[in-house]
Amino acid sequence: MELFFDPEFNGEGLLNEAESKHCINVLRHKEGDTITVANGKGYYYTCNIIKAHPKRCELALIESKKHPSQVFMIHLAVAPTKSTDRFEWMIEKAMELGIAEITPILCKHSERKKVRTDRIERVVVAAMKQSLKAYLPKINELTSFDDFLKQNHASQGYIAHCHESEKTPLKQAYQTGTDCILCIGPEGDFSESEVELAQKSNFKTVSLGNSRLRTETAGVIACHTIHLLNE
Amino acid sequence: MELFFDPEFNGEGLLNEAESKHCINVLRHKEGDTITVANGKGYYYTCNIIKAHPKRCELALIESKKHPSQVFMIHLAVAPTKSTDRFEWMIEKAMELGIAEITPILCKHSERKKVRTDRIERVVVAAMKQSLKAYLPKINELTSFDDFLKQNHASQGYIAHCHESEKTPLKQAYQTGTDCILCIGPEGDFSESEVELAQKSNFKTVSLGNSRLRTETAGVIACHTIHLLNE
Repeated sequence: MELFFDPEFNGEGLLNEAESKHCINVLRHKEGDTITVANGKGYYYTCNIIKAHPKRCELALIESKKHPSQVFMIHLAVAPTKSTDRFEWMIEKAMELGIAEITPILCKHSERKKVRTDRIERVVVAAMKQSLKAYLPKINELTSFDDFLKQNHASQGYIAHCHESEKTPLKQAYQTGTDCILCIGPEGDFSESEVELAQKSNFKTVSLGNSRLRTETAGVIACHTIHLLNE
Repeated sequence: MELFFDPEFNGEGLLNEAESKHCINVLRHKEGDTITVANGKGYYYTCNIIKAHPKRCELALIESKKHPSQVFMIHLAVAPTKSTDRFEWMIEKAMELGIAEITPILCKHSERKKVRTDRIERVVVAAMKQSLKAYLPKINELTSFDDFLKQNHASQGYIAHCHESEKTPLKQAYQTGTDCILCIGPEGDFSESEVELAQKSNFKTVSLGNSRLRTETAGVIACHTIHLLNE
């Protein structure tokens, strides 16, 4: 099944220009073909192509379906890796598993101090379509970890770090069915003061197992742990 | 901590040429420096450099340490993806988590019909050093899935596929503490006859959750599920 994405689409009328082009010029769809459009807000629209225009493809609604949102939301707060590829891999994999929000964080030991949100968005939309997700996650701008901790977070936060300290395995610390924030540090790990500050902000320090994991692996594995516990 | 790898090293004498070069020319180690060498069979050797030769670095043993092998072994039987990058990414991540054996499998729907074992070995060794693993997994040659099923496997096999059928979640099907074989199909999934043949060979059909996952994601997630259940 192929999925088109148009955040403005409501079931009738024009498909946005990028997706019209993809639908008509690339995939060579014709009038009368049936396609499915997601708006990233939970709706799938099954539509008929009534005008196969390569820029303003016109659609007629056959059926709309609302997907229930997940009973738990994952907010991934992660430091971009030195390698853009590794970071984008992680975003793609986290999307396949399912996440609700992403915040790239700037940490004391971050070597990568800039991130292109538009690139993250492209990866997220591609992964959303590929893995047939109904909800587009919220993508926040790069935020310093200290500022991130100062924000009012409704859900329980967890911080994974490699320092020697009291840590509970995430699979024990996480309460099934609840929303969560997963904080994953940069290659150089969170600084000890960042970990302290997180603890003061009621974030729980957790471990992700006994293996030494790269940042992007930790991000994917943490998301998967939450999904598995909710399975 | 940096780790050198020499499968022939037994604690004394010469480090192999590649690692000697890396140690002396690249990392600029000098006589008297202490380094750690893994042999991939469970041993870590802490050694003193007594001759800093760029091709035949000579070492004296300070201390040797045997790492216990894992109480469970994961054998990952996976179809190489169209994209070499995605396949090697999966191998790297599976290594970080910990696997004992890898068999690239050739399936009915495989688009990629060749795989370079030497490349897999390079990825495996790099990941082993990066994630400080003590054991080098066994890497088998590309094998047709039917032939793979004909082999005598001592451990329980699990096959993950996307066809509509009776499936148990891997987290329920797997028995903690046991060795396992995880079979992951190509982009086009296992054929129905391959799934049948696997079932006839006493492999259990399992699901990896509700998301539509790419082959390489399924491979990593399946390995992580086993590790998490054994945590």
